[in-house]
Amino acid sequence: MKSNAPLSDLAARAAAFTAERDWAQFHDPKSLILALTGEVGELAELFQWAAPSGEGVSTTRAGEEMADVLIYLLHLANALDLDLGAAVTAKMDANDARFAVTDVRSTAPRKA
Amino acid sequence: MKSNAPLSDLAARAAAFTAERDWAQFHDPKSLILALTGEVGELAELFQWAAPSGEGVSTTRAGEEMADVLIYLLHLANALDLDLGAAVTAKMDANDARFAVTDVRSTAPRKA
Amino acid sequence: MKSNAPLSDLAARAAAFTAERDWAQFHDPKSLILALTGEVGELAELFQWAAPSGEGVSTTRAGEEMADVLIYLLHLANALDLDLGAAVTAKMDANDARFAVTDVRSTAPRKA
Amino acid sequence: MKSNAPLSDLAARAAAFTAERDWAQFHDPKSLILALTGEVGELAELFQWAAPSGEGVSTTRAGEEMADVLIYLLHLANALDLDLGAAVTAKMDANDARFAVTDVRSTAPRKA
Repeated sequence: MKSNAPLSDLAARAAAFTAERDWAQFHDPKSLILALTGEVGELAELFQWAAPSGEGVSTTRAGEEMADVLIYLLHLANALDLDLGAAVTAKMDANDARFAVTDVRSTAPRKA
Repeated sequence: MKSNAPLSDLAARAAAFTAERDWAQFHDPKSLILALTGEVGELAELFQWAAPSGEGVSTTRAGEEMADVLIYLLHLANALDLDLGAAVTAKMDANDARFAVTDVRSTAPRKA
Repeated sequence: MKSNAPLSDLAARAAAFTAERDWAQFHDPKSLILALTGEVGELAELFQWAAPSGEGVSTTRAGEEMADVLIYLLHLANALDLDLGAAVTAKMDANDARFAVTDVRSTAPRKA
Repeated sequence: MKSNAPLSDLAARAAAFTAERDWAQFHDPKSLILALTGEVGELAELFQWAAPSGEGVSTTRAGEEMADVLIYLLHLANALDLDLGAAVTAKMDANDARFAVTDVRSTAPRKA
């Protein structure tokens, strides 16, 4: 699989991983969100005492934790039968409209 | 952009969104991880009192919060100059090896 | 109740709150940890775009979110029949030993 | 220190721990919230694959992670010069009023 694989291919690979191991029985939404929270916690720990720039934190280690976060997002999308790529594109469309460049340029974001 | 756009296209769109608003100045890693934590919190709140199956939770609302989580992951990948798709593929490769089907089938996962 | 009430009094008050509303049925550990995650997310959102010093963030608002985090910790302690004050004191004793002043003075903490 | 020490005593002990190690320089709010997130993540991981009841999870281990969460809350309260006990009592008062027993008895909480 190429590194620029679409999200739908990554979601399919996550689904196959789960099916092969008969792990769908563990993949209810609440359990998966707790697992996602665990990975976000590991990502936070990597940066907690770093300078704001993150200098000194291993990009490789950060990538591993970020990958874990995304993998659980994919498992959750599969559990909910939800198209994550479509959800992201829809949210990006909404953010483009909500945060008009002329309104917010150079001012701190609120949520985007 | 199609819903099956590759992660690299989504990351490029997130980068353009940030550049147009001159928001890179706010996108240091620690701030972005806090923002990511905020979105994970909103996702958790959607499901906190639901049954384990998540019955009754709006899939649309879940998709919106999951999209926010992924969007901040993309912003973080951009801030760290990191290829999230490559990181995910590498982690999936590692998980395939680490959780051999013959070892773990039908037993609760530890971390995957 | 005075503001310097012991944790055990606060835990008892949380237990009474739950019992009066017949909410113990909702207070399983996984649901409570998701609720706790939600409150941590709200705390993170307050500070996400602030300077590292947190300047400009309302201390009152921060206190409200921190209170919510602690209240869910108390509910979780009650659900697990666990003495949170004893757990904290034990962990503080362990941290005193683990992070000897002569070893770690002025160097970034690892976990404490 | 007794296990039923008031929060103010626990906060004072946390402040002394920090001062002795000259760690206040690391204890800006954003860093502390990331550290708190890390500990919440460890707590979530303990329960992620457990049954909703949490059966099988070590109460001792849960208490250790919960203690870590509370310790970082105390450090954050100290960094913000905030009385956590007063904040909790005020929030409990507000919750008593907001969730009147006659309104919410036996119905799923929304946020409390």
